[in-house]
Amino acid sequence: MTTVAAAQPVAPDGAAVRPRRLALVASKGTLDAAYPPLILAATAASLGWEVGIYFTFYGLDILHRKKHRRLKVAPLGNPAMPVPIPNLVGALPGMTAAATAMMRRWMKRSSLPDIPQFLEMARESGVRLFACSTTMGVMGVTPDDLMPGADIAGAAAFLDFAADADVSLFV
Amino acid sequence: MTTVAAAQPVAPDGAAVRPRRLALVASKGTLDAAYPPLILAATAASLGWEVGIYFTFYGLDILHRKKHRRLKVAPLGNPAMPVPIPNLVGALPGMTAAATAMMRRWMKRSSLPDIPQFLEMARESGVRLFACSTTMGVMGVTPDDLMPGADIAGAAAFLDFAADADVSLFV
Amino acid sequence: MTTVAAAQPVAPDGAAVRPRRLALVASKGTLDAAYPPLILAATAASLGWEVGIYFTFYGLDILHRKKHRRLKVAPLGNPAMPVPIPNLVGALPGMTAAATAMMRRWMKRSSLPDIPQFLEMARESGVRLFACSTTMGVMGVTPDDLMPGADIAGAAAFLDFAADADVSLFV
Repeated sequence: MTTVAAAQPVAPDGAAVRPRRLALVASKGTLDAAYPPLILAATAASLGWEVGIYFTFYGLDILHRKKHRRLKVAPLGNPAMPVPIPNLVGALPGMTAAATAMMRRWMKRSSLPDIPQFLEMARESGVRLFACSTTMGVMGVTPDDLMPGADIAGAAAFLDFAADADVSLFV
Repeated sequence: MTTVAAAQPVAPDGAAVRPRRLALVASKGTLDAAYPPLILAATAASLGWEVGIYFTFYGLDILHRKKHRRLKVAPLGNPAMPVPIPNLVGALPGMTAAATAMMRRWMKRSSLPDIPQFLEMARESGVRLFACSTTMGVMGVTPDDLMPGADIAGAAAFLDFAADADVSLFV
Repeated sequence: MTTVAAAQPVAPDGAAVRPRRLALVASKGTLDAAYPPLILAATAASLGWEVGIYFTFYGLDILHRKKHRRLKVAPLGNPAMPVPIPNLVGALPGMTAAATAMMRRWMKRSSLPDIPQFLEMARESGVRLFACSTTMGVMGVTPDDLMPGADIAGAAAFLDFAADADVSLFV
């Protein structure tokens, strides 16, 4: 948390001011749903905020070191896709792969890092990565499945962190 | 709300301290989306927090006494499903039922109560259950459709409750 | 922001009290997901709150002047739809149009404005509409695509606005 400490603001009378805090829940495991919490976390950390992300349910895939390089976008049932795909076509084999490849190209064109790079950057900026212990049990995720630096925590620990947050968001 | 009152903390000088408060919105009606707000609510209540859940849009199904025993998971368009199913297979009759049965087994194996039990536990712990009056009108849900103990409330009542919350989350 | 200023409460000693503030993120571009942030925003504004909505990812479609009259509901992969549709039927051409038409009828029957009307009402009540600059770049949305009155802002500007909010919700 050195980065955060270094950015900690100081009040006019010299007393340390508590930094802002952002508490995020990442509950989805698709490529498009993985970006918003990481973008918000990285932005907040760069502003000197304390940040924690609680990965739960399908969101655990974002912390999963075998899965997080292969998160996918489904075109099916998502009429808001930038290039909308009729559902019958979206159900054809290969369309999820095509939508995923398209989103990867967009992110690259906009110089956004991929998910593993983004997580590594977040961790280096002091962002805390919590894996939900309850859903690890439910979904059969083991500690060895998680990327290095992730902490296993229960919902009570997340609530304790979020209670003092300035902004809490469930993604 | 006896349970919450009993857990209310007291400051060193003997004055009553306002308990923490969690305000949740449950907007989705699938089985997988019903668990996160209930797990967070039950955890917060067990820590002595005041908790309210505002059920709106599809989330009203969680309060619906005929529907909430039969909430479903759709494998379609969800490439983050723990056992991913190709979309063409996911569209076959019976696949939603299979994904739902699988999630029920996981929850049971992890000793998580089912949705009606979870709601009853939450209510007994003092969690307030609000049914969104606007979407009741839009979706044709009547007061008799709701489980006992649910209060009908508008968005203004929810915002009033959430304004004093330490943590607010939209699920 | 005249409306908000006019509604600003005054404490018993005559000092101005900071109004409540609601910070919303609208990240989805379907018709059903567009209503909750707009209903919450309009309700909060009518209570004298300061309100800002940050439109990001697919949620940018809600601000898109060519797209926001044509937002859709997908019946596919959504077993919580009030009239559930088997997935194979939901994949047939025309079913997304049918589900969309049904939801439009419900909203009209409940006297809810359509999306462009709702946005215009929100803007007139002083609700601030922020378009996420990062996802504009990623998804190729230009300033000319946005409805009048929308401000382009980065995640840092949203966090700054949300840091002083009483309630923050990610929809």
